[in-house]
Amino acid sequence: MSSPQTPQDAARAFWAHPAGQRRLHDWQAAIDSGDFTSAQALEALVERARSQAAVTATAYLEFDADKLADRLARVDPTQPLAGVPISIKDLFDVQGELTRAASRVLGGNPPASHDAPAVQRLRRAGALLTGRTNMSEFAFSGLGLNRHYGTPPNPFDDERITGGSTSGGAASVAFGLAAATLGSDTGGSLRIPAAFCGLTGFKPSQASVPGEGAYPLAPSLDCVGPIAPSVACCASLWSILAERPLPALDTTPRPLRLAIAAGGLMSELDDAVRDGFEEAVAVLEASGCHVERLPFAAVDAALAINQQGGLVVPEAAALHREQLARAEADYDPLIAERLKGGRDISAADYLQRLWPRAGWQQRFEQEMAGFDAVLLPTVATLPPRRAALENDAAAFQRANRLALRNTSVFNYLDAASISLPYLATGAELPIGLMLSRPQGDDNALLQHACVVEAMLQDTDRSR
Amino acid sequence: MSSPQTPQDAARAFWAHPAGQRRLHDWQAAIDSGDFTSAQALEALVERARSQAAVTATAYLEFDADKLADRLARVDPTQPLAGVPISIKDLFDVQGELTRAASRVLGGNPPASHDAPAVQRLRRAGALLTGRTNMSEFAFSGLGLNRHYGTPPNPFDDERITGGSTSGGAASVAFGLAAATLGSDTGGSLRIPAAFCGLTGFKPSQASVPGEGAYPLAPSLDCVGPIAPSVACCASLWSILAERPLPALDTTPRPLRLAIAAGGLMSELDDAVRDGFEEAVAVLEASGCHVERLPFAAVDAALAINQQGGLVVPEAAALHREQLARAEADYDPLIAERLKGGRDISAADYLQRLWPRAGWQQRFEQEMAGFDAVLLPTVATLPPRRAALENDAAAFQRANRLALRNTSVFNYLDAASISLPYLATGAELPIGLMLSRPQGDDNALLQHACVVEAMLQDTDRSR
Repeated sequence: MSSPQTPQDAARAFWAHPAGQRRLHDWQAAIDSGDFTSAQALEALVERARSQAAVTATAYLEFDADKLADRLARVDPTQPLAGVPISIKDLFDVQGELTRAASRVLGGNPPASHDAPAVQRLRRAGALLTGRTNMSEFAFSGLGLNRHYGTPPNPFDDERITGGSTSGGAASVAFGLAAATLGSDTGGSLRIPAAFCGLTGFKPSQASVPGEGAYPLAPSLDCVGPIAPSVACCASLWSILAERPLPALDTTPRPLRLAIAAGGLMSELDDAVRDGFEEAVAVLEASGCHVERLPFAAVDAALAINQQGGLVVPEAAALHREQLARAEADYDPLIAERLKGGRDISAADYLQRLWPRAGWQQRFEQEMAGFDAVLLPTVATLPPRRAALENDAAAFQRANRLALRNTSVFNYLDAASISLPYLATGAELPIGLMLSRPQGDDNALLQHACVVEAMLQDTDRSR
Repeated sequence: MSSPQTPQDAARAFWAHPAGQRRLHDWQAAIDSGDFTSAQALEALVERARSQAAVTATAYLEFDADKLADRLARVDPTQPLAGVPISIKDLFDVQGELTRAASRVLGGNPPASHDAPAVQRLRRAGALLTGRTNMSEFAFSGLGLNRHYGTPPNPFDDERITGGSTSGGAASVAFGLAAATLGSDTGGSLRIPAAFCGLTGFKPSQASVPGEGAYPLAPSLDCVGPIAPSVACCASLWSILAERPLPALDTTPRPLRLAIAAGGLMSELDDAVRDGFEEAVAVLEASGCHVERLPFAAVDAALAINQQGGLVVPEAAALHREQLARAEADYDPLIAERLKGGRDISAADYLQRLWPRAGWQQRFEQEMAGFDAVLLPTVATLPPRRAALENDAAAFQRANRLALRNTSVFNYLDAASISLPYLATGAELPIGLMLSRPQGDDNALLQHACVVEAMLQDTDRSR
C-alpha cells in the first residue's frame, strides 16, 4: 500500500479504495508498517459512516461509534484480526445484544446470553465487531429488501439493490463501513449480494463452521461464511470460523480445468450477465484454462428439486409456524404468505426432495472428477431496481426466483461455493462468477478461486 | 455341553435345547471338541425343519435343504461363524435372491445383484445363510401378522403371535431352525419378538451397522441387528456386523445402578408383565443392584412425539407413495390404510418431531449420568392371541400401538437397547426386560446386559 502524507489520510484512503482492492492483509501490512493505527482506521471508518448516513442507516441496524472505540480498546493486539472491523449479520447471537433477524417479530426477546460460536471465534481472533447488519427479514429472500429497516443501496447504482439476504453486510463492506462481514447462506445469501456488490462471497461446506447461535432459516441448508474483498480475505476468515489452518493460497497461473454446467443454470441470463460471463471465460481461456461446457446430472437434479419447491420453504414454514400464527401482523406480508404456503407441503413431498440429496452429492463428486471447479454466473440477472420490486409482488417473486436459482443448486449439493466479482469491459455493474466444488473441498476451491481471481484481475481492462 | 451317545444325537440335542440355553459359543465348543460336525448340525436342523413343517413354512419364506448343503460346502472353516446357521429377514438383499420384504408388491423385482453389507459381513465370517424369514409386510407393524405368507406361531403358545416385525426370524431361532437371525428394528422389530419368544434382541446404535441393501421402512430410524439366544451371542454377531472388536463381556456380578423410567412406559402393563417385571427387579436387587424409579424428561418427550405420530408413518408414507398408488390391491389393506393416512402429514409436523431429536438424545445422555442402564418392560403386554387380531382392525391397532410403545422411545433416542427374556415363577409366557443406554454406548450396554442376564439366570426358579 502506498504511503500518503498523514496516517489519517492513509486510513481514509484504505476505506475509500474500491472494496475489491482493499485486502485484510493490506490492512495488516499498513498497521505493521505504521501507515496508520487501528484507532485511526476506526476513526476514518466512523467518519465515512457519518458522511454516508443514509447508507449506514440501511446497512446497519445498529452502528454506535462510542461502543466501537470501547471495543477497540479491549482488542488483543497480538491476534491475527486485531482491530479489523467486521460487521455481523443480524441473525447471529452477540452476547448482550438482541437478535432480531431484521424482523419486528423478535423485538420482545431478551438479549443473547452468549456469542454464537462463529462470532466468538472472530472476537477471539481480535475482530472489532462494528455492529449488526440489515438483511432480508428472517433471511427469507435473495433480494435484500426489508420493509421494516429499509433496503441498502447497491454501491454501483443506488437505485438498485444489493441482493440478499446478507444485504447490509455486503453494503457495509462495499461502502467501506467494515473490512468484511459475517453472514449466512441458505440458498445464496452470501454469494448473491457479493455478486451484485462487486465482492467475494464464500459459502463453505455446511459442517465446517458451527451454525449454533444463528437464527435458522432452513437447518438442513444453513451455512455460515464471509463476504469480503477477495478470495484471500475469505480464506483467512474461513480458517478462523472453521478453526482450521489457513489454506496455502498461490496465485501462480495454472491451466485449470473448469466445467460450465450446460443446461438450466445457463438459461434466462440477462444479456449483460451472459456477455460478462463469456468475456470472463475468454480471459480465463486466454490465461491457459481449459473450459468445457457439459451437462451435470447432479446439477440438473438439484435444480429440478429446487424448482419443485426445494427444502427451504417447508423447513422455514415449520420453524415459523407457531410464531406466525401468533404475530402475523408483524411479518412482511410477502414473507408471511410464502411461509403460510409452506405449511401445506406434505412430509412425503419434503422427504422425496431430501432423501436423494446424499446420492446427488456423491454423483456431483463423481461428475467433477477431472475438473478443478464448476464455473457459472452466480446470478442470472443484474441487480434489479428497487422500485420495480417494492410494490409488485409478481416482479418480486420472479426476481427472487432468478436471484436464487443458480446459487441454491450448490446449497442442495452442500458444495463449497464462492462468488468472485467481474466487471466486464465498459460495464457499469459487476457480475458474479461462481466456482464450486463438492462438499468438503473448501481448501481446493479457495486455492483454485485464488488463481482465477488473479487471472481476471491481470487482464481486467476496466480497472 | 454334555456329550450324548452319537454325534447325530448331540447335534439333535443342540437344536432341541431351549433357545435360551443354546449359545453360539456352545456350538463352537461342540464342533471343536468333535461332539458333532457342522454337517451333522445342519442335518439335525433340516430334520427339525421337516418335522415342524408348519412352523418352518411360516417362519421361512424359503427353506431349501439342498441349497444349504451346497452352501455349507463353500464355507471357510477357519472363520469365526464357520457353518453357523443364521436366518435372514426377507428385507435384506442376498445376491441372486429376490427381496420381497414379505410383500406381494415386490414380486416382480429382479434378484438382488449384491449382498447387503450386513449379509456380506456374516457370510464372510462363515455364517451359513439358512433362508429368508417372514416378517410384517414391509416391516410396518410390531405384531408380525402376515396376510400373504402366514403368521409364525409363538414357541410358548401356538395360538399366540411372535411379535414383529422380525417374526419369522424370531421363530426360526426359538424353534431351533437357526442359531440366530439377522433382522432390523425401526420401532422395536428386534426387541418385541425377542421378548415374546424368550430370546435376546439387540438394537444397536443406528450408525454402527450399515443399513444399505435393507428395504427401508423409515430411514431416520432403521437399525440392523440380531436376535439370538443370549447377550454374548448378540455381542458376537454385532461385532461382526459392525466390524468392531468383540466387546469384552464379564458375567461377574456387579452392583449395577439401574433406572426405571417412571411414567408412561410403566402404564397400561398387563398384570403378568407387571408382576414378572417386578419379580425380575427384586431378583436384581437381591443380587446387589441399585434400582431407582424416576422420570426421564427425554423418555417422556420421545413418548409424546411418538404419540403425536412419530417419524415412521410419514417416512414410510413417502417411501411407498408411488408404489402404493400403482399397486394398492397387493398391499395388506391394514398397511395400505396406515400408509395412505401418512400422506397427509405435513412437512411442518414431521420436522417439528424430527428437529428436537438430537437435543433429546443429548438430554437422555445427561439424565443417564450415574446409571448403568434404563430398565423397562420391553413390551407392555403378553404376546396377543392371533385370532383376536386377524379380523378386528381396532384390536390390531391397539395391540400394535402397545407393542411398539416402549421400544420405539429408544428408536427415537437412537439408544443402544437390548431385550432380555425373563420367565417369572410359575409363568407360561416369558416377558422382555429392556436395557437401554445412550447412542454409541453399545459396548457398555452389552457388558451390563451380560451381568443382568447372569443374575436373572442364577436365580431364575423356572429353569
